[in-house]
Amino acid sequence: MTQTVAFTKGHGTGNDFVIVPDVDGALHLGDTQVAALCDRRFGIGADGTLRVVRSAALPEGAATPDAEWFMDYRNADGSAAEMCGNGIRVFAKYLVETGLADIDAAPLRIGTRAGTKTVTRSDLGFEVDLGLFAIDESDVVVRARDLDVARPGVGIDLGNPHVVVALGSDTELDRLDLTVRPQLNPEPRHGANIEFVVPADPLVRHGVGAIRMRVFERGVGETLSCGTGVAASALAVRHWAGSAAPDHWSVEVPGGTLGVRVIDEQDGAHVLLSGPATLVYSGEIALA
Amino acid sequence: MTQTVAFTKGHGTGNDFVIVPDVDGALHLGDTQVAALCDRRFGIGADGTLRVVRSAALPEGAATPDAEWFMDYRNADGSAAEMCGNGIRVFAKYLVETGLADIDAAPLRIGTRAGTKTVTRSDLGFEVDLGLFAIDESDVVVRARDLDVARPGVGIDLGNPHVVVALGSDTELDRLDLTVRPQLNPEPRHGANIEFVVPADPLVRHGVGAIRMRVFERGVGETLSCGTGVAASALAVRHWAGSAAPDHWSVEVPGGTLGVRVIDEQDGAHVLLSGPATLVYSGEIALA
Repeated sequence: MTQTVAFTKGHGTGNDFVIVPDVDGALHLGDTQVAALCDRRFGIGADGTLRVVRSAALPEGAATPDAEWFMDYRNADGSAAEMCGNGIRVFAKYLVETGLADIDAAPLRIGTRAGTKTVTRSDLGFEVDLGLFAIDESDVVVRARDLDVARPGVGIDLGNPHVVVALGSDTELDRLDLTVRPQLNPEPRHGANIEFVVPADPLVRHGVGAIRMRVFERGVGETLSCGTGVAASALAVRHWAGSAAPDHWSVEVPGGTLGVRVIDEQDGAHVLLSGPATLVYSGEIALA
Repeated sequence: MTQTVAFTKGHGTGNDFVIVPDVDGALHLGDTQVAALCDRRFGIGADGTLRVVRSAALPEGAATPDAEWFMDYRNADGSAAEMCGNGIRVFAKYLVETGLADIDAAPLRIGTRAGTKTVTRSDLGFEVDLGLFAIDESDVVVRARDLDVARPGVGIDLGNPHVVVALGSDTELDRLDLTVRPQLNPEPRHGANIEFVVPADPLVRHGVGAIRMRVFERGVGETLSCGTGVAASALAVRHWAGSAAPDHWSVEVPGGTLGVRVIDEQDGAHVLLSGPATLVYSGEIALA
C-alpha cells in the first residue's frame, strides 16, 4: 500500500538526514523504505533518517522515560544506529523550529539507542553531551594509500571506535587519498573510524585549541563530517598535548567547523560537541 | 531576498533533476542558486535543474515559437546546457502529470537550447527524437586505468561528442575502474563522453540488438546513465555490425534499461531514445 510521508531535509556540517515526523509512532518504515528514502538518485538522498517519535509511543523496553522525544536514527542502508553527533543537532533544531520542544526553558533531553542525551543552544548552534570517553594507548599504525610511511595512531572510544592519526602539514592532509580505506595494524576487531588531523600552529589561541581533520568512516568511506570523529580528534590532540592542553577545541572538517569541550561530571570527564544544524526544505513523498 | 520555490524531484534511469515550475518566467535563478539546489549535501541534490517555462514568456531570440513549453536545463554547477536525453523525458512526464500538456492528443514539442524536440509515449515511458547523428571513422584509442591494452574507439557526434569502445565480456565491463578519466589518443579538442559497451551474445533477438554500457561523462565522471551516450553506444555497435544490423536496440546501463531506434526522415537518419521517467517527490525550499 502506498502511504504519503511528510518529511524535512536537514544537515549538520554536510552530514545530511531525512527527518520524518511520526509523533504517535504510527508509521512503519522498513529497512527497504529507509534505504529508498536515502538513495541519492532514486529517492530523497541522505546519510540516514531521523524519525521523530514520542518516547511514550515506543514499545516497552525501547522507551526512554527521561526524555519526551526519541530519535529513531537509521543508517542509509536501513539498519538501526545508536547515536549521531551531527544528527542529534538536526533533530533538536527540528523540535525547536516546529515548536515540539522548548530548549530555552530547559536543556533538551533526547532519547537515543545509546541512552538519553542532553542538548543545549551554543554559539555555533547546538551542543550535545556525548558522555564519557576512553583513550586506548596500545600501539596501532595507520597507512593511507599515498602516505610514504605508516603513522602511529591513538584509539579513542566514544561508544564507537576511532583511530586518530596526526599528519605533518595542511598540504599532506589536503593531498591525502581517502578513496580507498586506510590500513590499520593491528586491525581492530570491529574496525574503526579513522581520523587524520593537523594541529594548528600555534596550537592554542585565546585558550582554544584548533585542528583540521578528514575522516574515513567505517563502512562508508570519506565523509564531509563525522560528529564523534570530530570529538575523537580533539581528544587525541588534547591527549598528545599533555597537561597544558586546553579543554576547548575548534575542529575544521570539509563540511564546516565544530566545537569540542571537555568538562568534569560526577561520573568522570564528558566530551561535548557543538555545531550548526540546518533545515533545508520540506516535502511529501509517496512510499510503496 | 529569500524566495520560496516549489519544486518536484524526478529522474530518468537515475539521472536526476530538480524540476522548477515557472510558467510565466517570473523566477530568477542565478548560477549560485542552481548550484545550491543541486548540492547533494547542503541542498536538494541533482544532476541539474529543469525550469518549466512557457516559450512565449522567454526573451526574444530565446523563444521556440513551435513549442509551447521550453526546458531551461542547467547543469549542477549552474551553467546552461543544451539538451539532455534523460531530462527531457522527466520534463515531459512533469508536463503530462500536472496537466500542462496533453501528449495523447498530439506529439509533445518541447523547446530546448538545441532546438525543438518531439516527445511521444513509448513502451518504456517516453521517447524523444534526438535528430541527426554523425559517425567519425578516424582512429582514436582509449585506455582506462585497468585495461591492459588500449582499445580502438569510434567517434559519434550527437550534438555532443562521444567515443564508444567495445569490451570483450561482462566481467571486463563490471571490473572496469572508471574512478579516473580514461585516456584518449588523440585527445578530441573539446573532450568527449566515453562509453564502454559489451554486445550481447547473440547480438540480436527478435529483431532487437542488445548491449550493456558504462559511461564516463565529460567533466562529471562515471554516471548511472547518459541519454546521448546510450544512443551513441547503440549507433556504434550498429555501425560495427554492418548492413545486417537492426534499427532497434536495448541498452542496459547501471541506472536501468533504455531503447534506441534509428528511423529515416526527410533530412536523413534520426536516432530516437526511449526510457522511463519518474517523479519522486515534491517540496518547497527557501532560496536566498
